[in-house]
Amino acid sequence: MRRIKLIIEYDGTNYHGSQIQANGHTVQAELQQCIERLTGEKVSLMLAGRTDARVHALGQVAAFDTASTIPADRWKYALNSVLPDDIKVVASQEARPDFHPRFDAVSKMYRYQIYRGETGVAFYRHYAYCFSEPLNFDHMQEAARRFEGRHDFRSFCASGSSVKSYERTVFSCRLKEQDRFLTLEISADGFLYNMIRIIVGTLLEVGRGSLLPQDIDRILAARDRSQSGPTAPAQGLYLVEVKYPPFAEDMK
Amino acid sequence: MRRIKLIIEYDGTNYHGSQIQANGHTVQAELQQCIERLTGEKVSLMLAGRTDARVHALGQVAAFDTASTIPADRWKYALNSVLPDDIKVVASQEARPDFHPRFDAVSKMYRYQIYRGETGVAFYRHYAYCFSEPLNFDHMQEAARRFEGRHDFRSFCASGSSVKSYERTVFSCRLKEQDRFLTLEISADGFLYNMIRIIVGTLLEVGRGSLLPQDIDRILAARDRSQSGPTAPAQGLYLVEVKYPPFAEDMK
Repeated sequence: MRRIKLIIEYDGTNYHGSQIQANGHTVQAELQQCIERLTGEKVSLMLAGRTDARVHALGQVAAFDTASTIPADRWKYALNSVLPDDIKVVASQEARPDFHPRFDAVSKMYRYQIYRGETGVAFYRHYAYCFSEPLNFDHMQEAARRFEGRHDFRSFCASGSSVKSYERTVFSCRLKEQDRFLTLEISADGFLYNMIRIIVGTLLEVGRGSLLPQDIDRILAARDRSQSGPTAPAQGLYLVEVKYPPFAEDMK
Repeated sequence: MRRIKLIIEYDGTNYHGSQIQANGHTVQAELQQCIERLTGEKVSLMLAGRTDARVHALGQVAAFDTASTIPADRWKYALNSVLPDDIKVVASQEARPDFHPRFDAVSKMYRYQIYRGETGVAFYRHYAYCFSEPLNFDHMQEAARRFEGRHDFRSFCASGSSVKSYERTVFSCRLKEQDRFLTLEISADGFLYNMIRIIVGTLLEVGRGSLLPQDIDRILAARDRSQSGPTAPAQGLYLVEVKYPPFAEDMK
C-alpha cells in the first residue's frame, strides 16, 4: 500500500461541502467514487480542510491509500479523466505512509472575495459576495490587522460548536483592493467553525460604519458570538493553500 | 404606450440562447415572463443580438412596449427584483417609439475569452475556453488584424445558413494577453452565424502552428467554410456592447 497526496481545486457551487455525509453530493464522495472506478478499491479519503456547501478550493489537500500500480504523478491525469468538470486534481505525489493532510498541517490560507461592481453580478454571484453599499476601505484594512496574533476567537465561532480551545494564531490577515474586488487573505494555524465568514461579516460592519476598527479588540475580548457581525455568505470563500512542515508530506 | 430600452447582462450557462423557442429556457422568455408578472402585459421583446446556448452578455440591448406607469429608469429595479440571479438589468430608459435594438444597431462588440492556466479550470469552464496547448501569441495577433476591414466572410459562417450577403465590415479585431487569459475583442457592423467562434477556432490553428497569419487572406478569398478552422466552444463568447447612431435610441 502507498499513500497518495492530491492537491485539488473545486468549484463548490454544486456540492454540499467537502466532507462525505449521508444525503448530498460532496467532494469527498465524488473523489472516492472516481478512485474506486479506477482501481476497484474502496478508499477513505482524508482532507485537510472541511469546506461548507458552496465554498470553493484552489489548494485543498487530500490523501488516500492504494495498492494500485498507477505511478503517483499519473494519478492527476487518471483522476481528471473521470472527475466531473468542477473538480480538478492540480498535482499528485507519493506521501509518507503516516502523512495526514489535516493533522500535519501547520497553516492554512483562505481567501474571501467581495465584489463591488454595479455590473457583473450575474457572473460573480457564485464566486464572490456581491456587496454594493459604500464601504470605508481604510477602516476595514485597519480592522483586519487587529485579528493578527494569538487570540481567543470564541466571538468569531458559530454558536453551538464545541471545541477544546477557541485559541488560534492568525499569522496574517490582510485586505486588498483590486479593480472591483475586495479580497481578504487570512492564514492561521487553524480556524473555528465559520470563523472566516464571521470575520468578514464583522469587517463589513466596520466598512459600513456601524463598527470602528478598535471595536475588534473589544469584540475579541468579549468571547461572545452576539458581539460580532453576521456570517458572510459561503460563495465568497476559497481554501487557497495548506502548508506542512518540511519532510512531513514528501517521500523525497 | 411607451418603448422601454434595457441594457442586460446574463450568464448564458443555463439558457438555450437568447431568442425564444418552443422548447427550452431562454433569456427572452424569462424577461417576457417577468415583465408580465410586473404589469400583466404580454410583451414581445426585441433583442439586439442573438446569442446561442451558453453564450454570455455584458451589454445585450432589449426593447419592449408598455402601457405601465413604472418610470423608465425604475424598470431596472423592478425587473431585477423578479429576475433570476443569472440575468441582471444594468440600465433602463425610455426610447423613441420606433427604436429597434437590432435594426438600428451600427456596431456590435463581442469578446472571446481563452484561459491558459493549468489551474483554475474548475472555475472558468463555463466562462472561457480552457486551452492548454502551447500557442504562438504573436502569430495569432498578426492573424487577428487580417480580419479588419470589409470582407466576404463566407469561410467564417456556419455552413447551411443562408443570408443575402456574406459581406461584413470588421472595425477592429484585436487579441490581448493578460495574466492567464487571451482575449479577442472584435467589433463589426454585423456578424454571420458562428462567425466569431470560427474566427477564434482559426486563430487557434494559427497559434498551434498549423496555419500561418498570411493564410487568413487565402481563407477569406476561398469563400469556403471547409478552409477555416473548427468552431470554438460557446462558453468563451460575450456580447459586450451594441452601438447606435446619435438620437436613434434616446428620448433626450
